[in-house]
Amino acid sequence: MSGYFSEARVDEIENKYPSTVDGFSTFATKSRDEIESIQTSRLLKVVERAWQVPFYERRWRAVGLEPGAIRSLEDLQHIPSFSKSDLMASVEEYPPFGDFHGMDDLDGEARRQVVFHSTSGTTGDPQPLFFGAHDREVQNALLARVYRMHGLRDNDVVHSVYGFGLVNGGHYVREAVTHFTRALMVTAGTGVDTPSERQVRLMARFGTTVLVGFADYLFRLGEVARELGLQPGKDLSVRLISGHIPHDRRDALSALWGGARVCDWYGVGDTGVICAEREPAGGLWVFEDAQVLEIVDTETGAAVAHGEPGNQCVTCLFKDTVYPIIRFNTQDVSAFDTEPAPNDWNIRRTQGFLGRSDNMVKLRGINVYPTSVGAHLSVFAECNGEYICRLKTEDGKDELAIDVEWGSAMGETSQQAVSEHLREALGIRVKVNLVKPGDTAATTGIAVRQKPIRLVDERTGQP
Amino acid sequence: MSGYFSEARVDEIENKYPSTVDGFSTFATKSRDEIESIQTSRLLKVVERAWQVPFYERRWRAVGLEPGAIRSLEDLQHIPSFSKSDLMASVEEYPPFGDFHGMDDLDGEARRQVVFHSTSGTTGDPQPLFFGAHDREVQNALLARVYRMHGLRDNDVVHSVYGFGLVNGGHYVREAVTHFTRALMVTAGTGVDTPSERQVRLMARFGTTVLVGFADYLFRLGEVARELGLQPGKDLSVRLISGHIPHDRRDALSALWGGARVCDWYGVGDTGVICAEREPAGGLWVFEDAQVLEIVDTETGAAVAHGEPGNQCVTCLFKDTVYPIIRFNTQDVSAFDTEPAPNDWNIRRTQGFLGRSDNMVKLRGINVYPTSVGAHLSVFAECNGEYICRLKTEDGKDELAIDVEWGSAMGETSQQAVSEHLREALGIRVKVNLVKPGDTAATTGIAVRQKPIRLVDERTGQP
Repeated sequence: MSGYFSEARVDEIENKYPSTVDGFSTFATKSRDEIESIQTSRLLKVVERAWQVPFYERRWRAVGLEPGAIRSLEDLQHIPSFSKSDLMASVEEYPPFGDFHGMDDLDGEARRQVVFHSTSGTTGDPQPLFFGAHDREVQNALLARVYRMHGLRDNDVVHSVYGFGLVNGGHYVREAVTHFTRALMVTAGTGVDTPSERQVRLMARFGTTVLVGFADYLFRLGEVARELGLQPGKDLSVRLISGHIPHDRRDALSALWGGARVCDWYGVGDTGVICAEREPAGGLWVFEDAQVLEIVDTETGAAVAHGEPGNQCVTCLFKDTVYPIIRFNTQDVSAFDTEPAPNDWNIRRTQGFLGRSDNMVKLRGINVYPTSVGAHLSVFAECNGEYICRLKTEDGKDELAIDVEWGSAMGETSQQAVSEHLREALGIRVKVNLVKPGDTAATTGIAVRQKPIRLVDERTGQP
Repeated sequence: MSGYFSEARVDEIENKYPSTVDGFSTFATKSRDEIESIQTSRLLKVVERAWQVPFYERRWRAVGLEPGAIRSLEDLQHIPSFSKSDLMASVEEYPPFGDFHGMDDLDGEARRQVVFHSTSGTTGDPQPLFFGAHDREVQNALLARVYRMHGLRDNDVVHSVYGFGLVNGGHYVREAVTHFTRALMVTAGTGVDTPSERQVRLMARFGTTVLVGFADYLFRLGEVARELGLQPGKDLSVRLISGHIPHDRRDALSALWGGARVCDWYGVGDTGVICAEREPAGGLWVFEDAQVLEIVDTETGAAVAHGEPGNQCVTCLFKDTVYPIIRFNTQDVSAFDTEPAPNDWNIRRTQGFLGRSDNMVKLRGINVYPTSVGAHLSVFAECNGEYICRLKTEDGKDELAIDVEWGSAMGETSQQAVSEHLREALGIRVKVNLVKPGDTAATTGIAVRQKPIRLVDERTGQP
């Protein structure tokens, strides 16, 4: 058998990390003690592997850790977390791939079986990503589980607008659907891979029932469909949208797509899926058979009180060969959901993605997340959800100006209404500038990027 | 185990369709009788499956064939061949996917495990492509074999410029390298996925040793490297180029890339790889454990004399579930190589891709292949290999005008030299128009398409 398939150990995946909802439910209904006992035994294995990887070895020694010191989930807090900037520094210091992948430590063989990609680089340079055969296929099984939780069926036609090239997203989603479901995968990609009009026509032709991708571009596609005279719900049979959905915009997206069910999941390139909704919605369920999720203070890195917002810090329990991930601070803000669970699952839930802490703008003491502005704009029917935030210096003070696409008369009254609404929603006064639909596209890259840019720092000229 | 991995039967692939050169050599050194006996038993299995697929059943019944009538390789000629236009007609008649895939004939299950993509649509609309899990992984193993025949090593860094999105190419190459070799795969994609300058910088940064893709874009990348002041062979460590290489341009491509070895292989989206070179070059070896290749007359479809040019007509011996392929006329012209083999392999060889018969232009009785013009232009150092052919009507006669990118003074002498050379090479007088480097890019799509367009039919305005 090829190296990939023998290293992938696909026969043990369905048992340990089931791709079906029933399989996962068996895990999720265990007692907390049982859940944490499974987590602990998986954790000890990946920590042992991490000690063999130079990146961890040097960072852990530096804080006085010794092999064997980590014996429980509680001990995790003694391990220093790391973030993208540490990985980029590793790449800088140990070019070209850094010293965090552990792909070249096999005796007598050139290199472990590895899948290589990069992040999309929304918030800076693309970061290299490494997967071993086993953890890659575990991630795929976990994402198939998400789609089943959201209602995917064997006979669905799935249209994916995740991008390809070096970027991981499209490849990940394609593999998950192809390897672990029987749905038909249409890998349309971004508007660059397949122009938006053509995407809509393909959906009509193929009878697409499921759309997957980032909310921003799915809004755009819905508009293009209407421009082409195609009525979602009638001419387009999309039943389910599964992707990365700001919860305040969920209803608007559903309405745009003819009442399709809209479901959210969260994960990053390094870790794969971490948590996902399950109907009836009630937060995003953490896949605790595969991931340990902590919420930590955005500045101190210490655990926050249960239910308080903070950065999501993730340990992958299944990455046991290439690039183990122990306490990766995603710098994506969320909070645990403290409401009682709506069913008998004993796993944790989060409130989903609340913003990027490293893309956060601090204005007169208030934290503003440019990625969250779209949700606040959704109350205005005249706004198509497209905008760009510009951070400037005025009279020595940082100010945020927001260009908002507006499909109707742009009088002062409208502008004032938007300003006032954003002031209340964000807790700070921002300058609003209404522009024509499409005017922000060149800056946000809405049609060409995996994730659009929502903040330009004009103090430095850098996105 | 997931449906994909259980249907893929990966444990039997290395035995029947080895991805290693040694493994294939064991097959290739068998006697013709043994080779054909293996082919026959595999053929009977795929023919039996094809009878269950409506597309074949109706076409075969229409010519009076009955199940059981095909018993040998010689009987193949009684089966009607088909081409892209038949598949497109099937799609038209049985929307949206045609009746040739056989993916929905399982009892009690929604659909067979299927990988769905499309052709790049160089010569018309993109055509849907269907793969089952097993045949997909066989194709992957066969392409890994190609790369090993060309000299790929476990520790190579492979930079791929094949495109993604719906198009099959990039996905196929990515899977082959990732699943069946230990090389590191950098999925750069086309110039749209990753801009050309960035591609070159990535190659420098990652220490790329192997480049894979279509010759046209690899020429372009080599020029971009030089424009950036990066010297192939010194600043760029490319040792091997494997792709689709007009043999007349091989030396030029090698020189541009600092003397890298340049190797050719041939296949189409439907079938995967069909044949490939092996150093020392001496034609492209047909992978006769997996494919039966016939060369047939471009007009009558009858077998041509051994060594004469004609369309390549392929039967896949391993596609035994989804979209069986029995006598697919690729409309790509080649000819069997009649020289004695340079080693003890008893399998057939071809002369490689010689042109597209359906993109052929007939001028005053002479067949001209626009895709072959680049090879003829390579004798001119002033030409970067970029050009576009325009088919026009003048005084009621069809005429071919060719815009040729020219990096030097465009006097009448140069123009005459090119005209004269092409007249001799093509056997017909064409009108040559020298243009500035880059001037044909918008029409050919050289930076954005998987395969550039080389012919515009200005009689109709269609590419």
